[in-house]
Amino acid sequence: MTLSLKWAAAAIAAACITASLPFAVGHADDAASAAPIFGVKIPAGYRDWKLIAVGEETGLDELRGVVGNATAVKAYQDNKTPFPDGTTLVKLAWKRKPVDGLNGAFVTGPATTVQVMVKDSVKYAATGGWGFGRFIDGKPVDAAQHETCFACHEAHAKDFDFVFTHYAH
Amino acid sequence: MTLSLKWAAAAIAAACITASLPFAVGHADDAASAAPIFGVKIPAGYRDWKLIAVGEETGLDELRGVVGNATAVKAYQDNKTPFPDGTTLVKLAWKRKPVDGLNGAFVTGPATTVQVMVKDSVKYAATGGWGFGRFIDGKPVDAAQHETCFACHEAHAKDFDFVFTHYAH
Repeated sequence: MTLSLKWAAAAIAAACITASLPFAVGHADDAASAAPIFGVKIPAGYRDWKLIAVGEETGLDELRGVVGNATAVKAYQDNKTPFPDGTTLVKLAWKRKPVDGLNGAFVTGPATTVQVMVKDSVKYAATGGWGFGRFIDGKPVDAAQHETCFACHEAHAKDFDFVFTHYAH
Repeated sequence: MTLSLKWAAAAIAAACITASLPFAVGHADDAASAAPIFGVKIPAGYRDWKLIAVGEETGLDELRGVVGNATAVKAYQDNKTPFPDGTTLVKLAWKRKPVDGLNGAFVTGPATTVQVMVKDSVKYAATGGWGFGRFIDGKPVDAAQHETCFACHEAHAKDFDFVFTHYAH
């Protein structure tokens, strides 16, 4: 076997391992994936967190699901704000996709963004105690977009510790 | 204290206990809550199950979230149908509620229905291996409504073991 064939075999093996993983990869928890300004990363294992609520953005034709870590879920269950340090919320967004043959029914299509809020009342004191991260394909968007996060949360969700999402009972 | 006052005190105490529970109650797992035809009940603890996907029914102005038990999540992760016996899926539905001051943004309003699918290939052999339950305020709807479940799943979701919901990656 020549060297190039060996490399090809290794590449195919690696591809097969990747293909056998149950979920999309590419959200590596490394320095490169930290959001500008806040340094927030996509938390490991978030896709298996508990559901807080769902939502929709008609302007973007998107459906959303918000999940939270154990600290977040407990705070919601105790109905207690401000949320404690360590609270992490992740909003998953997908394009809205019609169900064939069922008029008016929609399901989730391709994923669009993953948005993260992390509570650290000291580190993020200037932004209500929250750090923000917005990611597309596992990569953070630019600083300009991250500069808009807190102003909007402050304008519309100040009464609930700057969090839009309430628990969907 | 008269007897009626004692009863009133007991009722108030009971009401306070109920009010202090973090989540909506009324989904008692007893015989009265079994769905007609299938005998399916609302499974205990489903609200803490993992998120499979979200959806929308525009005709009903509803947002939905589908969660699954551990058997369901594993089957989705392994990308393997038919789903194994013991798979349970719960679809939570809420009225769609606009977010004040954010045009086009919607969140979950009041809960409407809870719908359950349970896989038992022997017990439910006549309906693709699935038992169905549809509940409003924790109470099953009538037999006539339950008679419509399988026909629709068969017509539109036969290729995915009669399940509409695919995993939202």
